[in-house]
Amino acid sequence: MDQLEKCPANYVPLSPITFLKRAALAYPDRTSIIYGHTRFSWMQTFKRCCRLASSICSLNISKDDVVSVLAPNVPAMYEMHFAVPMAGAVLNPINTRLDASTIATHLRHSEAKLFFVDCEFIKVASDDAINLLVSSGEPTCTSPLVVVIDDIDNPTGSRLGELEYENLIRCGDPDTEPHQLTDEWDPITLNYTSGTTSAPKGVVYSHRGAYLNTLALLLQWGVGTEPVYLWSLPMFHCNGWTFTWGMAARGGVNVCIRKTSAADIYSAIMAHGVTHMCCVPAVFNMLIEGSSILMEPLPSQVHVLTGGAPPPATLLEHVGKMGFIVSHAYGMTEATGAALICEWQAQWDLLPADERARLKARQGVSMLSLADVDVKKQNSTDSVPRDGNTMGEIVLRGSNIMKGYLRNPEATAKAFEGGWFSTGDAGVIHPDGYIEIKDRLKDVIISGGENISSVEVETVLHGHPAVSEAAVVAMPHPKWGESPCAFIVLKGDRMENIVKEEDIIAYCQKNMPRFMVPKKVVFKDELPMTNKKTVIKSELRKIAKGFTVVLEEKSNDVREHLPVWLSMMSKL
Amino acid sequence: MDQLEKCPANYVPLSPITFLKRAALAYPDRTSIIYGHTRFSWMQTFKRCCRLASSICSLNISKDDVVSVLAPNVPAMYEMHFAVPMAGAVLNPINTRLDASTIATHLRHSEAKLFFVDCEFIKVASDDAINLLVSSGEPTCTSPLVVVIDDIDNPTGSRLGELEYENLIRCGDPDTEPHQLTDEWDPITLNYTSGTTSAPKGVVYSHRGAYLNTLALLLQWGVGTEPVYLWSLPMFHCNGWTFTWGMAARGGVNVCIRKTSAADIYSAIMAHGVTHMCCVPAVFNMLIEGSSILMEPLPSQVHVLTGGAPPPATLLEHVGKMGFIVSHAYGMTEATGAALICEWQAQWDLLPADERARLKARQGVSMLSLADVDVKKQNSTDSVPRDGNTMGEIVLRGSNIMKGYLRNPEATAKAFEGGWFSTGDAGVIHPDGYIEIKDRLKDVIISGGENISSVEVETVLHGHPAVSEAAVVAMPHPKWGESPCAFIVLKGDRMENIVKEEDIIAYCQKNMPRFMVPKKVVFKDELPMTNKKTVIKSELRKIAKGFTVVLEEKSNDVREHLPVWLSMMSKL
Repeated sequence: MDQLEKCPANYVPLSPITFLKRAALAYPDRTSIIYGHTRFSWMQTFKRCCRLASSICSLNISKDDVVSVLAPNVPAMYEMHFAVPMAGAVLNPINTRLDASTIATHLRHSEAKLFFVDCEFIKVASDDAINLLVSSGEPTCTSPLVVVIDDIDNPTGSRLGELEYENLIRCGDPDTEPHQLTDEWDPITLNYTSGTTSAPKGVVYSHRGAYLNTLALLLQWGVGTEPVYLWSLPMFHCNGWTFTWGMAARGGVNVCIRKTSAADIYSAIMAHGVTHMCCVPAVFNMLIEGSSILMEPLPSQVHVLTGGAPPPATLLEHVGKMGFIVSHAYGMTEATGAALICEWQAQWDLLPADERARLKARQGVSMLSLADVDVKKQNSTDSVPRDGNTMGEIVLRGSNIMKGYLRNPEATAKAFEGGWFSTGDAGVIHPDGYIEIKDRLKDVIISGGENISSVEVETVLHGHPAVSEAAVVAMPHPKWGESPCAFIVLKGDRMENIVKEEDIIAYCQKNMPRFMVPKKVVFKDELPMTNKKTVIKSELRKIAKGFTVVLEEKSNDVREHLPVWLSMMSKL
Repeated sequence: MDQLEKCPANYVPLSPITFLKRAALAYPDRTSIIYGHTRFSWMQTFKRCCRLASSICSLNISKDDVVSVLAPNVPAMYEMHFAVPMAGAVLNPINTRLDASTIATHLRHSEAKLFFVDCEFIKVASDDAINLLVSSGEPTCTSPLVVVIDDIDNPTGSRLGELEYENLIRCGDPDTEPHQLTDEWDPITLNYTSGTTSAPKGVVYSHRGAYLNTLALLLQWGVGTEPVYLWSLPMFHCNGWTFTWGMAARGGVNVCIRKTSAADIYSAIMAHGVTHMCCVPAVFNMLIEGSSILMEPLPSQVHVLTGGAPPPATLLEHVGKMGFIVSHAYGMTEATGAALICEWQAQWDLLPADERARLKARQGVSMLSLADVDVKKQNSTDSVPRDGNTMGEIVLRGSNIMKGYLRNPEATAKAFEGGWFSTGDAGVIHPDGYIEIKDRLKDVIISGGENISSVEVETVLHGHPAVSEAAVVAMPHPKWGESPCAFIVLKGDRMENIVKEEDIIAYCQKNMPRFMVPKKVVFKDELPMTNKKTVIKSELRKIAKGFTVVLEEKSNDVREHLPVWLSMMSKL
């Protein structure tokens, strides 16, 4: 048996780059990209990527060099997901919402050699923070060369230096043989995560991991032949949750749009028969609000994959009636996008809407690209019981987990401690095997030995008619160690004159177990947010740390901790 | 970049075995297997496989040892696809249609250590040829131990020695940790191919190849969540075209049946709501002939994947009306099952039935698990033009190609010559990228420099109302080198008195280019067949070698070779 060796016929390194050449051969004349009046076929996209790869090589870019790009979902951004690794380099897509100084930090940390900038972002790229880096350089890194991506459909003529994207394509050789990948463990992309607490970390994907998660997500979301995929999710988010490569694998149509507005989304759906799109939950609200512009119903159902936060029941019902079929996935940059997906079961169709939403809000079962997923008791290697109740940390293991954090061996070692990737998310396993996230592990409030999910308390608070935003963190408690403290933004101005702290607490007492009720409510004009629109809870925790709870003499301790009380009752 | 090392969290060897544990965790209570009155859940199947793996280990089976099995599509056969590799061993499923002496050859060649025999095949396994091997052994191999698989639903009590399958399961440890795979290149199964001309060869699959082709085929056939899969295709055919592992990946239901009769297939479809099944084309005829037993229409559409021969138009129309949606794939043992699949395009739905059938008869586009597929000109490294006309050999390259032939370095080296796996099939590439097989390369008849596909001539012959079977091979021709010779079995007795050689030739002259018309027609009572029901053309070629064609003085040579004539015309 052992004498059967690998050879070029039976062992080819796994890479999503192979999907592009296959698409050119298997679907040569099918549309690959639609952007305004610009259309390409898969053969054209392949040839354009070959040309770009050859031009990138001619700029002295060599294996494992980083090529950064700051661009919205335009054709160039899509092509670079193939052309850059075809040149042997590593693609680093930068979040377009970042400020110049953070972008400069990423460029410096990644030691980018080339920096592609869309015409819309020339102003940002001309900022001193970047300009200084680009022109002067530091001893540890070569200054990146800037290439402007002008709008292909509506050229602006804006430039920043000499190099321009379409020019690179024109000068490239369409028959160039792409860089021959010899090791599927080689890096393909570099995606910076902006943690809510820590400094940004550069997550490196391998060709192998990208290949495996791309195919698994296509399969598990049920993306059939000939999808028409709308780029409503930025490609800079985990390489578009791998659908950059996935559309080549399926020979699908990429409908590129520069802005994610309701008008642009609806007009793309009506014009091109969009079948699939991904988005964060905020986009649903935009779609509902903007639905008045729709003059007629959607031409056919649109499958939407969402993640980040579980979609609420009312929202699911509303968009469902409009023709959007929502699937729910859970993931993170470190897991090459999706790690869990809430695979729908036909029997659930018969349940009432709120029950269906409750099931759909669960993060679900593991991707087939993961070898293993588990929920571990805190500070233990044991799994939590499959009771839908006991919280633990979600840990992952498999070939779709990142190679590690670039130039950060400490963070890498910490993330992989114990042979698992620690997600930092607290979750439960339901008896049917589906996993549900309850909170970020560090946001869990431990009160008298009970775990309180801050997210669950926030969900109840969001149900109060006067509450616009709510964030719950731990505050010190003399008896229970920690107790919940709520920070609330009310709807409309001057609502504080009408809604008082005691009203909110009374509302909570009616709608959640007593031990979960916030002991303090703080009204604010706005909550501190990251550029990804998540609340920076560390700042709120700092404030809450200063609060003290005065113990009331008549505090009904046992009833406050209902589970403890129940367990005592059962012993009587 | 290069300092990011593999670790247990981010690099796990690819293996379809991981699908089983995942199924137990993600779909614990869903039905895994239905067989008569026997039903298992995925948790039960996982535990049974763990028990069996631990029992196999306790029989002193060690890594890379071969475990053979001779069984129909019963639950044990399914479980062994996981339990045997979970014990670190290699599963060798034996074709149940083989005679005892061929089975003995396989057992001897594979040096099988364990031999599982279904109760139905005890008689075959007791044959002298096997018995001698099992009891005496040869110096180079240990005698395999026999384990009888009794019918789990209807035990017969038949035994052959001491070991019995359910007993092994009972004695095994359900909490045993499966063998820890450290290298995805390790062998998982061994499948013997029975070539029509050469000795059987043992094709070895790696865990990696099995994993990759399983997921690719699920995706490309569009197997969604919760499939109900009917085992109408033997699991000993390329491990059931990888759907053994595939059903675990999808948490589907395996409907196991002992016999593939129309009655069993229809009753399984009616009782269990079958959604998917695979079969060779002969099964369609069985389904059509047996459809009279159907008292009501099928409960819902059944997706059928077929391969081996392209499905004819009339058949597709007929079974389509019955509720079977047929997809067409092409593969071979060496490619871990499917290599190409005819991905359907929505625009083709609008075409007339015969045109749809013509498109569906094409073998299609490559599996995503293949890195590359090409059609090479004979004795050349050049590809054929994409004109749908020029024949060449189909060659494949990718990680789903076998590790090689067991203990046959010459055949392995020959198969992988030039860095490609040579399929031995002659095909064309259509301008839209779809590949179509025209013939086995060695069955192509080269007449005056023109390639004649024997299959195309046979297809025309099958259209003659009196023809039951037809096979076309080359016979020597004094002027053109080779010319076609047809062997024909007529429908019903004594038809030779009515249909004559000249009638067949006249029919051909009306229905094909003149250069393709057989120069000789031989009537036979039956054609020589392999146990896989393919014609043994080598025997017919031997007969045809003895024939001679007498040149007629008035032979219209130019018109006989229409393409040559046309090319001459164009020069005038």
